Amino acid sequence: MEEMTDRGNGRMLISVDVMGGDHGPMTILDGIALAAKKYPDVEFILHGPERELKQIVGKRKNLQSRCEIRDATNMVSMGDKPSIAARHAEGTSMWSALEAVRTGEASACFSCGNTGALAMLSVLRLKRLPGINRPAIAILWPSKNPQGHTIMLDGGADISADAQDLLQYALMGTTYARFGYGLSRPRVGLLNVGTEKHKGTQELGKAYGLIDNSAGNAEFDFMGFIEGMNIPGDLCDVVITDGFTGNVAIKASEGTAELILGFLRDAFNFTPLSRIAALLAYTSLRRMKKRIDPRRSNGGVFLGVNGTVIKSHGSADAVGVSAAIKLACKLARSNFNSKLATTVSSFALQKPNASNSISTKENCR
Amino acid sequence: MEEMTDRGNGRMLISVDVMGGDHGPMTILDGIALAAKKYPDVEFILHGPERELKQIVGKRKNLQSRCEIRDATNMVSMGDKPSIAARHAEGTSMWSALEAVRTGEASACFSCGNTGALAMLSVLRLKRLPGINRPAIAILWPSKNPQGHTIMLDGGADISADAQDLLQYALMGTTYARFGYGLSRPRVGLLNVGTEKHKGTQELGKAYGLIDNSAGNAEFDFMGFIEGMNIPGDLCDVVITDGFTGNVAIKASEGTAELILGFLRDAFNFTPLSRIAALLAYTSLRRMKKRIDPRRSNGGVFLGVNGTVIKSHGSADAVGVSAAIKLACKLARSNFNSKLATTVSSFALQKPNASNSISTKENCR
Repeated sequence: MEEMTDRGNGRMLISVDVMGGDHGPMTILDGIALAAKKYPDVEFILHGPERELKQIVGKRKNLQSRCEIRDATNMVSMGDKPSIAARHAEGTSMWSALEAVRTGEASACFSCGNTGALAMLSVLRLKRLPGINRPAIAILWPSKNPQGHTIMLDGGADISADAQDLLQYALMGTTYARFGYGLSRPRVGLLNVGTEKHKGTQELGKAYGLIDNSAGNAEFDFMGFIEGMNIPGDLCDVVITDGFTGNVAIKASEGTAELILGFLRDAFNFTPLSRIAALLAYTSLRRMKKRIDPRRSNGGVFLGVNGTVIKSHGSADAVGVSAAIKLACKLARSNFNSKLATTVSSFALQKPNASNSISTKENCR
Repeated sequence: MEEMTDRGNGRMLISVDVMGGDHGPMTILDGIALAAKKYPDVEFILHGPERELKQIVGKRKNLQSRCEIRDATNMVSMGDKPSIAARHAEGTSMWSALEAVRTGEASACFSCGNTGALAMLSVLRLKRLPGINRPAIAILWPSKNPQGHTIMLDGGADISADAQDLLQYALMGTTYARFGYGLSRPRVGLLNVGTEKHKGTQELGKAYGLIDNSAGNAEFDFMGFIEGMNIPGDLCDVVITDGFTGNVAIKASEGTAELILGFLRDAFNFTPLSRIAALLAYTSLRRMKKRIDPRRSNGGVFLGVNGTVIKSHGSADAVGVSAAIKLACKLARSNFNSKLATTVSSFALQKPNASNSISTKENCR
């Protein structure tokens, strides 16, 4: 809860794991440089191979005086089981990046690395917020909402969630919507296979009751059960589901979006005439693509631990990285994590038990 | 297993529940009329209000001599719990439509009605195929595959599935791919949150082993764990998952497709110039839309009972209905269900137990 660390001159520090991205440290630094323009008061601690980083930073004027480099030549491997990766993580760039948040030095941590390992290390090193059983990743889904997206959690930190976990997701998700996106009274939907009350598992039925009961005190509107097609719609701001379902749903939809854009390309390449039409339609097509550009919604927030941890897509380019770094800056500046802790702890009394889960399981994606 | 009922003159009978569609019996009959042109040897038994149906059929020359009407003025309600709907279903159009398949009179049944009730009634009236524990709905998902789609099951007949059920889905799905779409050696993927073997639940790990072991004998290629983005890809022909995950994934993707098409409309309506570009791009846009048109892939096949049962989207228009009726004709003609029974029974010996599930649960969507 050491958010908004002020180095005495109103500056904030973001801790960046520069390893683990598909395109290497150069792309991460390009992303940081983009974000740094928008947040001139932010400084960065870079965790990775010192020599290489010195060289890259040296070439970027607006970063030279704003980056501190911490040498870490090892990295968490991408394919390893989270438990194995976490066991051998000490001294890696990810470990070092989280450490700066744990000590209170930095206000937020950014990483492109192994999601499961990042989730597990965050829990092991930063510890859960009091009252939280199962932390979750909140992701942004392009939608018809005025704010342009819907927040969904869990996007894949864990593969299951019971009714109490789903209630905690609702509390954390609405706090994120409130302080991350200025929605004073977020609308929450519980993902199911139908909207009728008898649909779905018993656990979902229980979660329905718990979330419904908390809506008044926690100042959100509960829209009840929603279906998959409502996620990109305008019915709710926050969608609650377990990490298995959430992860499959977002990836299936990303695949579908890619399929449609591919078909669109094929259609405009079909005849010489359609290629001319494509030239004329260029601006319109670009306008559309911008609204569903996954780079704009890059950055999953790991909710439920003592510190702000942002997970970027491994395949993110500089624009994608910069979106996630900007999100880190925004959340750090709004003192988000201590507000999250307050919300969650005020509901923790209603919670019967808080057993152990994520830190001992292989369930992270 | 009384497929391909031959009325002595090489004709097939399809049993149609004309109630339950959002647009009423008229649209269903329009769809039948479209399909009837392609299948001149098929005849239809229509289950619904006799007077109204007589009037509609009377106006369609190509249906007059090919339709028999069975009066059924009651219908299964759409919002009711499956168990309640099924309990009061006797005498409804859905009941009557299934009855014609049960007695062997018709080769396949079509309905737009309440999915859960149709699933439950199919199990109760037609009974499961020997060796099948949990029937499933196989749906088509537009994809990069040469055949233009991926088969996914379960699309929402039940909300859970254990390892044995998932193996049965693989056997049924590959039989459907083989005899419905001519794929001699279908590629099967098991849906998970990652492709690594340690990912996902224990049950999925068990299913992995069972499906992998059966691939050789059942003559399909097992591609292992796949992720959501692979469903619309070209990695596999058949995707296996439980009905909860499958239902959420397909609906989320339908919602995403709708969102993108909406953004595309907005983009082309943005300025007078972009409206002109839209006119020129009209043919290309139509070409693209045709490839993802959900009407072309309308028709979920309920696999695992003694008889072919096709479930159409309630909102299907005449083109959508005709696609599902054509599918019914195609499967009936290929004697599909007895081939499915043979495949499943040849693997039933490997199966330890077959307990009761769907017929006693409220879990249908």
